[in-house]
Amino acid sequence: MASRTPSAPSPAPARSDRPERERPRRRLSVDERREQLIAVALELFSHRPPEEVSIDDIAAAAGASRPLVYHYFPGKQAIYEESLRRAGRELSGRFEEPAEGPLSERLYRVMGRYLDFVQSHGPGFAALLRGGSVTAGSNASAVIDEVRQAAYDQILGHLALPAPSPGLRLTVRAWIANAEITSLEWLADRSVPLERLQLHLVQEFVAALTLTAAREPALAAELAGFFAGERPEGPTGRLVRDLAGLLAVPELAGTLAALAGGPAGEGPTDGAGAGSVSGAVTGNDAGNDADGGAAAGESG
Amino acid sequence: MASRTPSAPSPAPARSDRPERERPRRRLSVDERREQLIAVALELFSHRPPEEVSIDDIAAAAGASRPLVYHYFPGKQAIYEESLRRAGRELSGRFEEPAEGPLSERLYRVMGRYLDFVQSHGPGFAALLRGGSVTAGSNASAVIDEVRQAAYDQILGHLALPAPSPGLRLTVRAWIANAEITSLEWLADRSVPLERLQLHLVQEFVAALTLTAAREPALAAELAGFFAGERPEGPTGRLVRDLAGLLAVPELAGTLAALAGGPAGEGPTDGAGAGSVSGAVTGNDAGNDADGGAAAGESG
Repeated sequence: MASRTPSAPSPAPARSDRPERERPRRRLSVDERREQLIAVALELFSHRPPEEVSIDDIAAAAGASRPLVYHYFPGKQAIYEESLRRAGRELSGRFEEPAEGPLSERLYRVMGRYLDFVQSHGPGFAALLRGGSVTAGSNASAVIDEVRQAAYDQILGHLALPAPSPGLRLTVRAWIANAEITSLEWLADRSVPLERLQLHLVQEFVAALTLTAAREPALAAELAGFFAGERPEGPTGRLVRDLAGLLAVPELAGTLAALAGGPAGEGPTDGAGAGSVSGAVTGNDAGNDADGGAAAGESG
Repeated sequence: MASRTPSAPSPAPARSDRPERERPRRRLSVDERREQLIAVALELFSHRPPEEVSIDDIAAAAGASRPLVYHYFPGKQAIYEESLRRAGRELSGRFEEPAEGPLSERLYRVMGRYLDFVQSHGPGFAALLRGGSVTAGSNASAVIDEVRQAAYDQILGHLALPAPSPGLRLTVRAWIANAEITSLEWLADRSVPLERLQLHLVQEFVAALTLTAAREPALAAELAGFFAGERPEGPTGRLVRDLAGLLAVPELAGTLAALAGGPAGEGPTDGAGAGSVSGAVTGNDAGNDADGGAAAGESG
């Protein structure tokens, strides 16, 4: 039991490209050994649900004995919790991004790192977020909450608003949940390319921000500042062009113009902007005064 | 212990408006008693985390003895699981909506019922979704998955698309997660009125659908059909007018026009729709050919 000889049906060690003899000979310091065990465990928990990883698996993958593992950790739960915390810290670290350049491009880089993590820690990420594992327990909830908080703090930091409204804070938290569930769904069937998911999530953030500003006039100026920093080749520019493409669908533009006109009986100025918008696109006034939008724009 | 006299510090019975003597006298059938115990337990679990509800609490609230509760259920876990399933079925039932009228108004009614449930089952809903409770275990996950699936099936049914794309399916699932997390966040601080949340969530669905269609040309015609069924006074009409209001902010419209123009070197037709859109609103061509949009609209 205490021998370092791996037991018969052991999983392949993480780095099987190295000569088999090399690892057992290397003498690790106490800290190094602890780190190595956590790293090996994290790797195993990333690819299998926690229930399916045993102390023997961890020992074998680390080229260590079972008693050695128990020397560092009281049991599997302790290693699992430590590797959870480690994964949480790593994931939180991926949200850190310098406050430079267009906002949507910063978020795009962040989401690239986030989705890389999702891809490389798939089953572990899923087990963590689904919370379906009894092993995970409330420790997993604490880790998840910390990761969400890190994401939230980073995003609010980049938005750099003096006093984010309750509506905006809700929007940011909901978008983070959206990113999580989208990642989970993606892991289940990988039905769209990861790069598309990355762009999609960033564009959904831009849309959610825009929607929030549409409801909160105080945010409109901040939104204008956000768009002013964006570039045509970035995620926001591509989104604007995609939406413009939709507006070129004549029946859609006409419908939007009618909706923008407001309920019957409302004054002609309400929604005149969108009315003339669609009018311009379709070459059709759709019952709206085409000058109304221009006037609204000049007086705003 | 086996006496029906309530123990001293018992919580008030659910219907305290009835005379105190009436309930103990009423003899319930086996099925009725079981139903009553589940209903009482669900009520208790809705207002306190499962850890804080005891068999004695359930017995007291039901005007029953502890042994009587044990006669129907082997223990607290069994009652909890049954009330979870009951809650899940009730929540799933709230997604059912006749396929009549504008889509966003159907979803608005559904979200009204959903948020009523959230409000009236607050702590239970939170404990269920947070999965932070050890008591909940994997049974809670199964209930959550069923509720999500019911919501998903209902929404796809209302969209009535012959073959929903992977991107659209992802959008619907992500929006359901958005609704969950938004509800949870709302429960924590109730910082915005519930009616606003209801409108907000429906409008976010419309926006997510639009974004998906912007990326998937095959969906554009379906989207036009969706908008064609909407009414100016409904959630979609209000959204379109709010967004039109944003376009009336001159600096924002100018920026959008520049973004819609695309990266330097791209052909003038790309994004001409949005260019002329913003041009019309601001009364400023922003470097775009104002006729381009009209031409694109007529040829689409």
